[in-house]
Amino acid sequence: SVNPDLASERLTASFNVEKLTAQLDGGAEHTRMRRAVVEAIECDPVFSRENEYFQSQNERYEAAVRKAVYLQKKMYKMGWTENGPEYKYIYRALSGDVALLLHRIFMRSISVLGSDKQIAKWIPLATQYQLIGSYAQTELGHGTYLQGLETTAVFDITTQEFILNTPKISAMKWWPGDMGRSATHSVVFAQLYIQGKCYGVHPFIVQIRSLQDHSLCPGIIAGDIGPKMNFEHVDNGYLMLQNVRIPRENMLNKFCEVQPDGTYIRQGSQKINYFTMTTVRISLISDEVIIPLMKACTIAIRYSVVRRQSKLKPGEQEAKILDYQTQQEKLLPQLAAAYAFHFINDYLQELFDRGYREIQRKNFDTLPELHAFSSGFKAMVTQYSTSAVETCLRACGGHGYSLLSGLPSLYTKILASCIYEGENTILLLQTARFLIKCFMAASAGQPVPPSVTYLAAVKPGNCPAKNKLDFLSPDIYTEAYQHIAVRLISSRAAELQDLIQSGVKKHDAWNQCTVQLVQAAKAHCHYITVKNFTETVEKLETKAGIQKIMKHLCDLFALHGIFSNAGVFLHDGYISGAQMDMVTASYLDLLAIIRKDAVPLVDAFDFTDKNLNSALGSYDGQVYQRLYEWAQKSPTNKQMSPAYEKYLKPLLHNTLSKL
Amino acid sequence: SVNPDLASERLTASFNVEKLTAQLDGGAEHTRMRRAVVEAIECDPVFSRENEYFQSQNERYEAAVRKAVYLQKKMYKMGWTENGPEYKYIYRALSGDVALLLHRIFMRSISVLGSDKQIAKWIPLATQYQLIGSYAQTELGHGTYLQGLETTAVFDITTQEFILNTPKISAMKWWPGDMGRSATHSVVFAQLYIQGKCYGVHPFIVQIRSLQDHSLCPGIIAGDIGPKMNFEHVDNGYLMLQNVRIPRENMLNKFCEVQPDGTYIRQGSQKINYFTMTTVRISLISDEVIIPLMKACTIAIRYSVVRRQSKLKPGEQEAKILDYQTQQEKLLPQLAAAYAFHFINDYLQELFDRGYREIQRKNFDTLPELHAFSSGFKAMVTQYSTSAVETCLRACGGHGYSLLSGLPSLYTKILASCIYEGENTILLLQTARFLIKCFMAASAGQPVPPSVTYLAAVKPGNCPAKNKLDFLSPDIYTEAYQHIAVRLISSRAAELQDLIQSGVKKHDAWNQCTVQLVQAAKAHCHYITVKNFTETVEKLETKAGIQKIMKHLCDLFALHGIFSNAGVFLHDGYISGAQMDMVTASYLDLLAIIRKDAVPLVDAFDFTDKNLNSALGSYDGQVYQRLYEWAQKSPTNKQMSPAYEKYLKPLLHNTLSKL
Repeated sequence: SVNPDLASERLTASFNVEKLTAQLDGGAEHTRMRRAVVEAIECDPVFSRENEYFQSQNERYEAAVRKAVYLQKKMYKMGWTENGPEYKYIYRALSGDVALLLHRIFMRSISVLGSDKQIAKWIPLATQYQLIGSYAQTELGHGTYLQGLETTAVFDITTQEFILNTPKISAMKWWPGDMGRSATHSVVFAQLYIQGKCYGVHPFIVQIRSLQDHSLCPGIIAGDIGPKMNFEHVDNGYLMLQNVRIPRENMLNKFCEVQPDGTYIRQGSQKINYFTMTTVRISLISDEVIIPLMKACTIAIRYSVVRRQSKLKPGEQEAKILDYQTQQEKLLPQLAAAYAFHFINDYLQELFDRGYREIQRKNFDTLPELHAFSSGFKAMVTQYSTSAVETCLRACGGHGYSLLSGLPSLYTKILASCIYEGENTILLLQTARFLIKCFMAASAGQPVPPSVTYLAAVKPGNCPAKNKLDFLSPDIYTEAYQHIAVRLISSRAAELQDLIQSGVKKHDAWNQCTVQLVQAAKAHCHYITVKNFTETVEKLETKAGIQKIMKHLCDLFALHGIFSNAGVFLHDGYISGAQMDMVTASYLDLLAIIRKDAVPLVDAFDFTDKNLNSALGSYDGQVYQRLYEWAQKSPTNKQMSPAYEKYLKPLLHNTLSKL
Repeated sequence: SVNPDLASERLTASFNVEKLTAQLDGGAEHTRMRRAVVEAIECDPVFSRENEYFQSQNERYEAAVRKAVYLQKKMYKMGWTENGPEYKYIYRALSGDVALLLHRIFMRSISVLGSDKQIAKWIPLATQYQLIGSYAQTELGHGTYLQGLETTAVFDITTQEFILNTPKISAMKWWPGDMGRSATHSVVFAQLYIQGKCYGVHPFIVQIRSLQDHSLCPGIIAGDIGPKMNFEHVDNGYLMLQNVRIPRENMLNKFCEVQPDGTYIRQGSQKINYFTMTTVRISLISDEVIIPLMKACTIAIRYSVVRRQSKLKPGEQEAKILDYQTQQEKLLPQLAAAYAFHFINDYLQELFDRGYREIQRKNFDTLPELHAFSSGFKAMVTQYSTSAVETCLRACGGHGYSLLSGLPSLYTKILASCIYEGENTILLLQTARFLIKCFMAASAGQPVPPSVTYLAAVKPGNCPAKNKLDFLSPDIYTEAYQHIAVRLISSRAAELQDLIQSGVKKHDAWNQCTVQLVQAAKAHCHYITVKNFTETVEKLETKAGIQKIMKHLCDLFALHGIFSNAGVFLHDGYISGAQMDMVTASYLDLLAIIRKDAVPLVDAFDFTDKNLNSALGSYDGQVYQRLYEWAQKSPTNKQMSPAYEKYLKPLLHNTLSKL
């Protein structure tokens, strides 16, 4: 039975929920496929996550390995493949709570960076799980700055081998997933030395555990890095190498090669070695960020129409908390962001697919743009979404703080996305560097990638809005965002030039501008996201009410951004104080409008109860019953605590050795 | 041996660290006492926290009970008392990782709300631990809105008893600490009914577990609410009451009483029943918020001078990450906030002590101001500090995400402070209601409490600053904050009046303004905090460099607030765009200045390594060694995982039932 407070929300949807779901899935046939996968996974008790919140790190790891291995059988039985269209639905259905995920990254590295011969040798072995791969890049003392890695690979001409070493503690590999207890092999990044000369960081395939008994190979020290904020199911590990010898053929050599005589040959940019990270950055946006954000919105919004607290009107029943403006203002902008990011992800995928085709043809021209975009949007989307999930958690009050709400795990997991695959500040500064370069080029009349031509087209004048309704015009707000992006980028370019002309060294000048360069890079990404949302809305079918509600969400996303970053819009008077009041008024009006469709809008994400794994977010809204029943299953309720006999009883009976 | 990168930071301190420590402690004699307590606790292996990050919820609970019981012996031996000056140092030394904390709240409730007779009966029992108390207010379906509580206490004249009941699932008590497995008694809040008439929420002492064998008393259902984001050491519990009878004397009756014939008598405000929460709100600010924030700053700042990454200048060694402007901008404002909040806490303590003395004399006049201030500052300080700790965590990159950094636990624990003892948004709205009332009164020439007289003294004109140095003048920025607070409060008052005059009902008008009312309440608290910081700095001794560095921190705190909330300062032109650039310039300059003293400024907080319990924050800065050695002790490294034999071996040897 559905909680009537939740049921009533579904009666008044202004649009067809099923149609919106199909839109999000990219067509009704995808929805069908997704549901079939989810059904197959969820009916299988091996994949149950019901005990997840009660388990220790060791238990989580073991369950994740069990699932990963069992999944191989399941996929074979179902006819699903690693590269098939079902895979992303499998991952979604499992909520990523499965081991051996780095095996995929291991394979992707070899596919991208390996020669045809290497691919022919290693990919079948990996596909058949005759080995388990990991990917070892980050070191205890070195993360995002890859050139600083200290692991060495010295070429020994006499034996035609590379000798790998961890010269000191800070060079120990640290964090690689599946490394602590599972992997037998790893792609290891190390500084290549040939006859005393360093050629920079390169990838090498290294065996780390025996294929017979899983013992560590000679010269290998490896283990688990211990407890983390989340990812208990993953055995993130450490790895030390002591004179580990691997054959010359184990350096991935599609783009760089060491010949038998020690000659080093490079084809194309060395930066291609980092390309695996670019691909990972793009793919994580949907799987690790947008889907968790959608889940958090689903949980918090459903809970907010079931939870009643305090009275809006004297004498009436306590009100649903979603009827409070403050609660709407917490949750609905996050909902709008989930949609905005879903659409920007489509845009990035397209950009990436186009670029990747070029790279396969050894045309590296798009690499800087791809790098700048994957970096900037990875940073912007992860940061925004992390803070959005935290807002959802806090909006559920005490119950949000219970692990059984599902929200703490969503938060502690999504938070990592701000750090892994490139720390966000560093990434935004790389985007900023690209933007400054493009701005200088555009100003000098040189060609720039289409995504940044707007930098050259600075329009004079201020925001023309006359009343609050004008701010519901996409042209008005998109132009405001564009204006801000151009202003922030161009002022930083000017400041950099001024500083350098006044005698400050280039690198010092850069460092002195970085706080505001980060702001400029964010403004660019924000602008592109708003613009892409408006363009997506235009293309949506007008039937079934979908375009209309998406337009509201697009407006909300845009106006929320102006309201929350008022300073940059007011700074040069592009938007006046009076206009900011109009923005605020329109923004608050939109909250009340979208509130009516809030539940249908999260229903459209189409998460099953098992997938949400939340006492607060279930489709039926039986929140209190579920919390109570689930809590009773906690190991903390399974026995009389030994603490009573040992400590409390002597205390209460005053038989502690005489106080 | 101290890491030389950390040691070098200590050589150039611009002030005397020991003197600043004494200043923070309130005098050198307090520093001595604190260190003696810390020494006594930390040399005792029972209180070790080294395994904390490896333990399950059950293990954490058991350890916390062991510590709590052992602490009684220790305190007796040391001559420390529950109400003595050492207690806060004990709590700090234990990092709150101890059980039976609600026992103190139980006692405080009785002391504040109980009659002399009740105090005489219960306090000695509690002091000698002949019972273990808890405090049960929040219900599964009811939190901050206390009037909505559903537990009932019906007076039975014939037996002179109250009959307590949980009429439905949403009325179950939920969250009370020490309730799940430890407490024998609880103060239970319930709706009082006499002869069918409801008299509102009152506190009752109820026994829940046998003093003989700890079994649940008749009519009691209780247990643990299961896993949470933190507080694994606390047995937060649930409680259902089924016709539980307690004697008439068990209603706490200092202010309200039910006489034998059923006559109900009240003395003073009913709101006094919630006064325990006000006292808790004030005391948590220091213990649960400011100290953890100081720890997070210590960890992140020490780590940031040991961690080197990337190059600031080509050809040089990799730079300390604290030398990057972006890293300074992440951490130093949090450091400034830690000092700002330390000083505002002194201010609040004083305000509270004065008010409490009045209340003891049954003069309730200061109650509204106390309530508004404790609410607003609790919300402001917890929210700011939570986000500050998160910033510290993220500023440490991957290593910050390891539990061994200490930061995840600090974060997940401090986050709860935004929710417990009143959800922050609700609290800020209560502060806003008080401010609007005071503004209206002040405008009408009526007297208002001294803390808000500024609302009446609106000065015309804009910010007079002419260059960036002007923004280092406390008068300039304090007036800017005051202007904003007055503007936001007065515009909301005007908007409310307009709405009501235009026919909108009062409660609807209020709801429509709440998003901005929250903003106004925050602006008020921010203003008072800045003002108090400047006043504190003025009074500091000028010797030993303390006043100078505190002035820098005060400036940083103030300018960071303007920089981050630029919109409200620019909105009406009080600060112009050009002036905002001056603010930015001064703000960024300050970062570089304070960076030089960053390590001495966290050293002054004087945390021991054991107290920080962090691989990143130790006094000696041996980060990588510590991480590696500690990780090896993790239970995830203690054995060959059973997952290999069970799952990985069959997978690798392809002996899974034929794929």
